[in-house]
Amino acid sequence: MEAFSDGVFAIAITLLVLDLVVPVATKGNLFTAFFAEWPQYLAYVVSFATIGAVWLAHSAITENLEHTDSTFLRLNLLLLLFTSFLPFPTRFLAEYIDSDESERAAVIIYGISLLLLTGVLSLLWRYAVGAKLVREDLGDEELEVFTQRLSPGLGGYFALTLVGIFFPIVAVFGFLVVSVFVILPIPFGRRRGGDRDGEGGRATGPRSRRRPG
Amino acid sequence: MEAFSDGVFAIAITLLVLDLVVPVATKGNLFTAFFAEWPQYLAYVVSFATIGAVWLAHSAITENLEHTDSTFLRLNLLLLLFTSFLPFPTRFLAEYIDSDESERAAVIIYGISLLLLTGVLSLLWRYAVGAKLVREDLGDEELEVFTQRLSPGLGGYFALTLVGIFFPIVAVFGFLVVSVFVILPIPFGRRRGGDRDGEGGRATGPRSRRRPG
Amino acid sequence: MEAFSDGVFAIAITLLVLDLVVPVATKGNLFTAFFAEWPQYLAYVVSFATIGAVWLAHSAITENLEHTDSTFLRLNLLLLLFTSFLPFPTRFLAEYIDSDESERAAVIIYGISLLLLTGVLSLLWRYAVGAKLVREDLGDEELEVFTQRLSPGLGGYFALTLVGIFFPIVAVFGFLVVSVFVILPIPFGRRRGGDRDGEGGRATGPRSRRRPG
Amino acid sequence: MEAFSDGVFAIAITLLVLDLVVPVATKGNLFTAFFAEWPQYLAYVVSFATIGAVWLAHSAITENLEHTDSTFLRLNLLLLLFTSFLPFPTRFLAEYIDSDESERAAVIIYGISLLLLTGVLSLLWRYAVGAKLVREDLGDEELEVFTQRLSPGLGGYFALTLVGIFFPIVAVFGFLVVSVFVILPIPFGRRRGGDRDGEGGRATGPRSRRRPG
Repeated sequence: MEAFSDGVFAIAITLLVLDLVVPVATKGNLFTAFFAEWPQYLAYVVSFATIGAVWLAHSAITENLEHTDSTFLRLNLLLLLFTSFLPFPTRFLAEYIDSDESERAAVIIYGISLLLLTGVLSLLWRYAVGAKLVREDLGDEELEVFTQRLSPGLGGYFALTLVGIFFPIVAVFGFLVVSVFVILPIPFGRRRGGDRDGEGGRATGPRSRRRPG
Repeated sequence: MEAFSDGVFAIAITLLVLDLVVPVATKGNLFTAFFAEWPQYLAYVVSFATIGAVWLAHSAITENLEHTDSTFLRLNLLLLLFTSFLPFPTRFLAEYIDSDESERAAVIIYGISLLLLTGVLSLLWRYAVGAKLVREDLGDEELEVFTQRLSPGLGGYFALTLVGIFFPIVAVFGFLVVSVFVILPIPFGRRRGGDRDGEGGRATGPRSRRRPG
Repeated sequence: MEAFSDGVFAIAITLLVLDLVVPVATKGNLFTAFFAEWPQYLAYVVSFATIGAVWLAHSAITENLEHTDSTFLRLNLLLLLFTSFLPFPTRFLAEYIDSDESERAAVIIYGISLLLLTGVLSLLWRYAVGAKLVREDLGDEELEVFTQRLSPGLGGYFALTLVGIFFPIVAVFGFLVVSVFVILPIPFGRRRGGDRDGEGGRATGPRSRRRPG
Repeated sequence: MEAFSDGVFAIAITLLVLDLVVPVATKGNLFTAFFAEWPQYLAYVVSFATIGAVWLAHSAITENLEHTDSTFLRLNLLLLLFTSFLPFPTRFLAEYIDSDESERAAVIIYGISLLLLTGVLSLLWRYAVGAKLVREDLGDEELEVFTQRLSPGLGGYFALTLVGIFFPIVAVFGFLVVSVFVILPIPFGRRRGGDRDGEGGRATGPRSRRRPG
């Protein structure tokens, strides 16, 4: 399940580039034409950061699982559905930012997509904890910390979607900030002993554990 | 073979988003334009659920294999062919649902694609059992349960394709139900001892087995 | 390197579906329109089978490697280049089969692509053997068998490309036959003891070896 | 993190083929039409080689890591962002090479993309060394060698971007040379004992280590 999910995240994040449109250079001025396309670059970066952050949080969840059940698998599939759907609202952003009337609608559609995505992510974790699917050696405190990290993302996207009604472009930059600074540095529960540094510090996984030293 | 197959499933499921078309907002009413595109969202969700379910069933099969032979590899390639082909009939659905004359034809083409896909999946499993490729510690009862789970999916898609001749839209929702509630919670044969919960319960694979606990 | 290569094969094989064009149903007759598109389905299946066969041969090569060097890595990258390029000549086939004048040119361009692809595959194996990168416990006989299996593919594609000058459509079906019946059942050198069946028989890899029994 | 990154590299390198445009054969002369499209093939090969080289360097970095921290993860995400963005400037090259006025601009935009990409790659390695994330058994000398290999790539792309102002087409071939001959044969720090050959020589990873012999 982990390999499949990782694949979907990697593909969704890379497919974003297909929606970037090469501008036609009028009178040979390609640089001007390049930079005039800023809305699509902004939309690209925001969605890239979001999927990256969700992927990292998802990795943290799956690493702390002891086993799964079919409800978890269905929720996970729902998370992947919203993730791989994200390039679609991204196209709305790219096309309608900086347009007069539809900018607001595009930002709201995008914001709601982020809300649904983070909502399912949060639900997935809460379900895993509630159904006792997480590793037994994980302390209550660690569980709590993890849960508390997922919530501000959800709250942030909700607040920013509201902000988007009045100041669409501000909301878009806000989405970027939430992804990179709130969700991305999610704490991993794998600290064994004291040899790992604090927040976000973790080993690169199974490989490093096998090494001497 | 497993990594390659997983990759194909993950890519096919994620490529579906590329066929979603961003509507043109007439008179700035982007919300109306967004929701008017419901046939493509429905087609997207149905195909996503189907590929997800087939992937899960395929994982269950490969996990229970002891070895493979070249017939198995060819059948597996055929399964991947029908899986990665699915975005194509999905486009028929997206384009022709809610159209007067072609809706029925689109649903039938789609239904037959699902039939072929599930048919090959079922064949793959039966071949693996018949050619004694499955793990020896797998009991007859477990084999039987697994076989019986794959059949209703096949039967369901067949019945729904027939339904599609008269009520195309009903058939489409039926395809979704079969994927999510019939095939998806496929039982895994990895229950060792009694420490796993029943239907659908399974460990997250090799990683979890190495952990102390 | 193996995971990366597997990824490229899986993506190239799945991207083929993006080039399938949904026909426009004239007068509501979608079935006729569907089947009139047979050239693109044929091209799809042939390229799918080819990439599948090359992937399998590549897996067999990497499984028998002890280590790699930078020439090998470059050759491998060249192989991936021709593999991921294949969807492009496939589009030529899909578009120009059944056209009066360009059919022959399209088939020749496609055939040369297959020749280059199989040529690099063959070169990769010969280089690995010559530079002693393969596993030491691999007997001379096994090496020979493997080498002899890769050659008919190369010869077959060459002959068929020549056939394509006079009978383009025959050549296309020939490409399919070579992929599925000549290259695909490539023998794996992993037979340990006598408990594996003969041609093509192999274990599913590392996982199965860890299991008791 | 490694699997996810590998996935992004593999997808980005394979997506390049989607931007190749099948020419329309005028008067049935498909061969002439095929070769007239040389700019897009050149752009394809250059970007393929670049992503391949960056992937290899990235593999070398992650293999030498002991653990990661959140700054490293963010830098890594930035590297993946520039990598998966590369198909976009590639399209500029494909479209505007051999055009009168915009060729220069296209080459400069492309060159700057390569600079940013290699710059982040270099930064990622320097950060890993500075923050003591690399394996402890890696000698100072090996660290130095590795650092010195990444720099000429960066310098080469910078010089070539300048060259591109005056001789755009020369710069494009130069990008290819830097990727294939400067970055690609990056030395791996995994030489244990003396049984590996020198530059570029490495085992195929975890699998080979488990084998007897």
